[in-house]
Amino acid sequence: MPYFIITYDISEERVNKVRKTLKKYFMWVQNSVFEGEIGIGKLQQCINELLEIINHEEDSVYFYQIDNRHNCAKMVLGIEKEMTDHFL
Amino acid sequence: MPYFIITYDISEERVNKVRKTLKKYFMWVQNSVFEGEIGIGKLQQCINELLEIINHEEDSVYFYQIDNRHNCAKMVLGIEKEMTDHFL
Repeated sequence: MPYFIITYDISEERVNKVRKTLKKYFMWVQNSVFEGEIGIGKLQQCINELLEIINHEEDSVYFYQIDNRHNCAKMVLGIEKEMTDHFL
Repeated sequence: MPYFIITYDISEERVNKVRKTLKKYFMWVQNSVFEGEIGIGKLQQCINELLEIINHEEDSVYFYQIDNRHNCAKMVLGIEKEMTDHFL
């Protein structure tokens, strides 16, 4: 299954909705970053939900797709955040 | 040359310094995201500079390394930001 890194920059009034949606499909790994494997059907569902929420002239979401997770190494400087338990 | 996606979550008082450093080596593509190819020597130099700036108990920088840029596809929802001209 393809692996995704998702980064976003969303206006304050919509950011919680975007996080709630991404949290249903991916792991929250840093303030503005989610990660995870996903099948194509679920991915399409996630994208459709996001398209309903975001303002297309102000907000920005990037999906970086890596075909094989092992083609991507992650190095951490400072702390590795575990955001999953933060209240939304 | 390996390709990097760099994401960060840095306290307000240090974030501009971190951006200035990353801007020397990578392209600023979203508020908290840089991208680019880099050789191992320059990468080490960049990391050394960041390690001097960040607070290791509060700040967080992730380097996602992709061996071949063509193994990574990018999909954009909303706007694709061009941050490079923003004043730092």
